[in-house]
Amino acid sequence: MNLLLIDNSDFISPGTIAVSGRRFLQLRDIIKAAPGDTIRTGMKNGMLGISTITAMEEERAILQPELNTPPPPPSPVTLVCALQRPPTFKKILHGALTMGVKKIHFIHAAKVEKSYWQSSVLRENELDHEIRLALEQCGDTVYPDFEYHTKFKPFVEDILPQLVKDSALALFGHPRAQTPLPPPPPGKIIVAAGPEGGFTDYENMMLENAGMTPVTLGQRVLRSEYAVTALLAKLS
Amino acid sequence: MNLLLIDNSDFISPGTIAVSGRRFLQLRDIIKAAPGDTIRTGMKNGMLGISTITAMEEERAILQPELNTPPPPPSPVTLVCALQRPPTFKKILHGALTMGVKKIHFIHAAKVEKSYWQSSVLRENELDHEIRLALEQCGDTVYPDFEYHTKFKPFVEDILPQLVKDSALALFGHPRAQTPLPPPPPGKIIVAAGPEGGFTDYENMMLENAGMTPVTLGQRVLRSEYAVTALLAKLS
Repeated sequence: MNLLLIDNSDFISPGTIAVSGRRFLQLRDIIKAAPGDTIRTGMKNGMLGISTITAMEEERAILQPELNTPPPPPSPVTLVCALQRPPTFKKILHGALTMGVKKIHFIHAAKVEKSYWQSSVLRENELDHEIRLALEQCGDTVYPDFEYHTKFKPFVEDILPQLVKDSALALFGHPRAQTPLPPPPPGKIIVAAGPEGGFTDYENMMLENAGMTPVTLGQRVLRSEYAVTALLAKLS
Repeated sequence: MNLLLIDNSDFISPGTIAVSGRRFLQLRDIIKAAPGDTIRTGMKNGMLGISTITAMEEERAILQPELNTPPPPPSPVTLVCALQRPPTFKKILHGALTMGVKKIHFIHAAKVEKSYWQSSVLRENELDHEIRLALEQCGDTVYPDFEYHTKFKPFVEDILPQLVKDSALALFGHPRAQTPLPPPPPGKIIVAAGPEGGFTDYENMMLENAGMTPVTLGQRVLRSEYAVTALLAKLS
């Protein structure tokens, strides 16, 4: 936990917060915080700063936050990501969120197993936990926004073309593409990442028809979470 | 398994190999290979190509390899990496190897727990397994080379300065550095990555004394495996 992420419900009086549960245990057992210590703190969707611990009680910590620094700038990248099996989903999500991505469209594709859409990681409370862990890791406060598209064709035909029009660069990794990743232009970027096993030829064609440029990510085939991280790094 | 990695011991006659164990089970149960199918194949430290399956027996597959393509070029980066707890070690290793790193110096540092040096992941057979998984993932045949330095000071004083002299760029991530990552020059690059919690001020000073430039990797703090992947992507 590089950041204590708080929200309005943590305030017990103006200028004073109380945190319990996981965050309290982190403060007490991992950080070994004591009264007088300062902890890097951020308000959900708000400013960053520090909190001074005024008391470590039995089951909660009392802190006084002073928040006056804006969060780090977001990544210019909107990610379009085929839904993956839950462990991989979590890794991709963590990588993308810690690198500042704020908008992800999770989509279906031929090689996405239908069962993935029933996974508990997509439930709001589990997803919120993953988001918090990522924001606490990277020191950001701004919650991302996700959209889910359980059908490939309506997404690429009806939604994607407009997202491409709104972007300065729109690309997806294609195993047989010759074009290398271009240097990132100023403005928004939209990137599509395929499922394990890749998009099908038909899906690749549909993405191209929607205005996305197929690019090669090099000769080496990376696991999805490393591929997405590498791609975001090169585009930042 | 994107590549069937073979070595000389797999040959049962000139031009014919037999694979058993994990690789056989992958061919039979995951890839569902049948006689006549071709499988991307690479010779340990040698050429890449395809193998044609001539028989799927009870406990082994018989294949005829035709290898005539060189492996992908290695990364120019030599990694100096503080030893991490075993799960993180495996993730960093996988990320670095699939991105083509061929030389890693694992080093001690103040925030490296001594017990990490006794971990079974450093034993030759476990390490060989991790290397194989990474080479099979990324489609490479060239084994990496690791060195272990269980004392920080002798490494940075006696070994690191020469490695820096042999490199066109030598850098390490520093939380208070102002210099951003420069564009990668042609030639060798050496990069040091700290332990969980970072290098100490003393260690940072020693790295600078050895000729390494402290750079900022941005405002966001990434988990080690994502940080190393992002760094390698930006330097490739």
